[in-house]
Amino acid sequence: MRPLRIAQVAPLYERVPPLRYGGTERVVSYLTEGLVESGHDVTLFASGDSLTRAELVPGARRGLRLEPLGYDPIALHLGMLLQVYDRASEFDVIHCHTDYLGLPLARASRVPTLLTLHGRLDLPDAHPVYRAVPGAGFVSVSDAQRAPLTGVRWAATVYHGLPPDLYRFHPTPGRYLVFLGRISPEKQTDAAIRIAVQAGIPLKIAAKVDRADAEYFATVVRPLLDHPLVEYLGEVDDGAKGELLGHALALLFPIDWPEPFGLALIEALACGTPVIARPRGSVPEIVSDGRTGLLCETEKQMAAATTRVASLSRAACRSEFEERFTVRSMVNAYERVYEAERVRAAVARTGKGKAMRASAAERVAGSA
Amino acid sequence: MRPLRIAQVAPLYERVPPLRYGGTERVVSYLTEGLVESGHDVTLFASGDSLTRAELVPGARRGLRLEPLGYDPIALHLGMLLQVYDRASEFDVIHCHTDYLGLPLARASRVPTLLTLHGRLDLPDAHPVYRAVPGAGFVSVSDAQRAPLTGVRWAATVYHGLPPDLYRFHPTPGRYLVFLGRISPEKQTDAAIRIAVQAGIPLKIAAKVDRADAEYFATVVRPLLDHPLVEYLGEVDDGAKGELLGHALALLFPIDWPEPFGLALIEALACGTPVIARPRGSVPEIVSDGRTGLLCETEKQMAAATTRVASLSRAACRSEFEERFTVRSMVNAYERVYEAERVRAAVARTGKGKAMRASAAERVAGSA
Repeated sequence: MRPLRIAQVAPLYERVPPLRYGGTERVVSYLTEGLVESGHDVTLFASGDSLTRAELVPGARRGLRLEPLGYDPIALHLGMLLQVYDRASEFDVIHCHTDYLGLPLARASRVPTLLTLHGRLDLPDAHPVYRAVPGAGFVSVSDAQRAPLTGVRWAATVYHGLPPDLYRFHPTPGRYLVFLGRISPEKQTDAAIRIAVQAGIPLKIAAKVDRADAEYFATVVRPLLDHPLVEYLGEVDDGAKGELLGHALALLFPIDWPEPFGLALIEALACGTPVIARPRGSVPEIVSDGRTGLLCETEKQMAAATTRVASLSRAACRSEFEERFTVRSMVNAYERVYEAERVRAAVARTGKGKAMRASAAERVAGSA
Repeated sequence: MRPLRIAQVAPLYERVPPLRYGGTERVVSYLTEGLVESGHDVTLFASGDSLTRAELVPGARRGLRLEPLGYDPIALHLGMLLQVYDRASEFDVIHCHTDYLGLPLARASRVPTLLTLHGRLDLPDAHPVYRAVPGAGFVSVSDAQRAPLTGVRWAATVYHGLPPDLYRFHPTPGRYLVFLGRISPEKQTDAAIRIAVQAGIPLKIAAKVDRADAEYFATVVRPLLDHPLVEYLGEVDDGAKGELLGHALALLFPIDWPEPFGLALIEALACGTPVIARPRGSVPEIVSDGRTGLLCETEKQMAAATTRVASLSRAACRSEFEERFTVRSMVNAYERVYEAERVRAAVARTGKGKAMRASAAERVAGSA
């Protein structure tokens, strides 16, 4: 396809790519570098310490989580978005990853705005804001995510993708289960521990604890960590994560919330490791029940599933990842959406142009 | 003056007027009712439980502080502001009290936006956002407040005003000092206690403790409350406040931050009670040193000032309030600003209209 001039607008909380955790900034990084690779002219609006081959326009000195408290994140994001739309004529499409904050500016702009929504959409406060800008195109990161938000123009669902060589394929199932990501009630770390104990299989927990979840960790999870089958590793980097996942029997994912997209799921698939999960949110779209994982409602069912999970083909898990969840498939999907948005905006402009010319001709005719 | 169609846009945190504390919502209420009184056509965008003679457009069911946690205040405010600007053509002027959030919408609107800034402006994160909308007119609540924010169009300073009958004039000085408002390090509650103790005069503290200040209260203030000269009353309503202030020797206001406008100062003056204060932020504009109060830098000086403060004329304090800090003076000042903004916008439109017609004529001439 012909090269496009694309603005990528990232959140400012973490640099792009993030130093450690930071799902959105990580995906924006993969997408940005993939688009540059494809020959597009990409401008990345992000924190000033971001690393990219695109043109970087800093919206803050560095990722905000590194700053001492007292900054105003809304003002900083709004300032960045004002910069984006001041330069709108330089772009064919503006792709925002900053929730609804840029929408009032998108409404006043002739350049098409595409908004990828990364968070959950089942809380209604922002719905009227999303609906107020009918010109904007919305991208969901799973079909399940978009269900609660009606009345906007959904342009596509685009799944997240990872570099194919980030995690190595491990053909042989291991003898332990893994819990990955964040220790929190929604992620049901305590259920994961009970399931592993019930199944009598070791569980390795590689996860961080956010401040908001400190009490859950202290009162609910920590008392369960003493069990001899449970090992708590804290937060691990990509290298350690690959080894940990690759040598596991299965990823345990007993979430109890509508997770818009579970990155841990495709990390497991990339390693060839199947998933035992509760079918909430995006899970059934990412994990194929009976092929790349086993989807169960109860802890008892999940414990029982551990006896069957080794029979799933690890090669099938890796193929599923390579076909649907690489950076390349994500970039290709976004390229199609950008091109459709560009054409759509051009048609709208031409239509309006024709209408305006027609109306001017009528006025001239009327005044003659 | 001729009646104007005015949109008043309040924060959603408290109803208008607020049930208890809530400086901005209280001022917006006084202003709104005063404008209705003057015959203007006022539309108030505020929480749905607000009480007003204007047309009320609810931006939320009720003041957000009454809601359980989990709401998204930015989304709710943005949703309200989108409603405001969707109806922009119904107004001569849009008067926002919601900081910078509406500015991207103001930029795209032909109706003039006036923004009263109620908070401190010495933190730079929002400055680029304020500067990005050269068409908007800004109102500061004191001259001191506006100093750090250059590069915007300051339309006026308008001081807050209170209803003249809200607090009764008390001609006789009492025998105790008062500390009013919020217990916090910036308000220097601990300094107030030390000053009163040093002067040997009783101190009554009528103030709330916000969650953010709980630690300061527990570790710094509470240990000082045991002193026999100190009485802690918690938060009090307007009636009790008037009696408390009116029977006081002086209001003690040893703040250590650039307070944009100290409502407690004009509450004291309304009662005829002079002020002993540190000259920070708006204080020297509100309190006339040696006439309606005594301005001192150190705690020692403030303790010494208690011996002189009874000699100040309480009648002069009340007159100062009546001349400069009533709802009427505030409403009159805003009326002048609105009219100036309306004329300014009309001139800009006419200018542009003339320019557009001229340009069209040139095109016709050129194509002939």
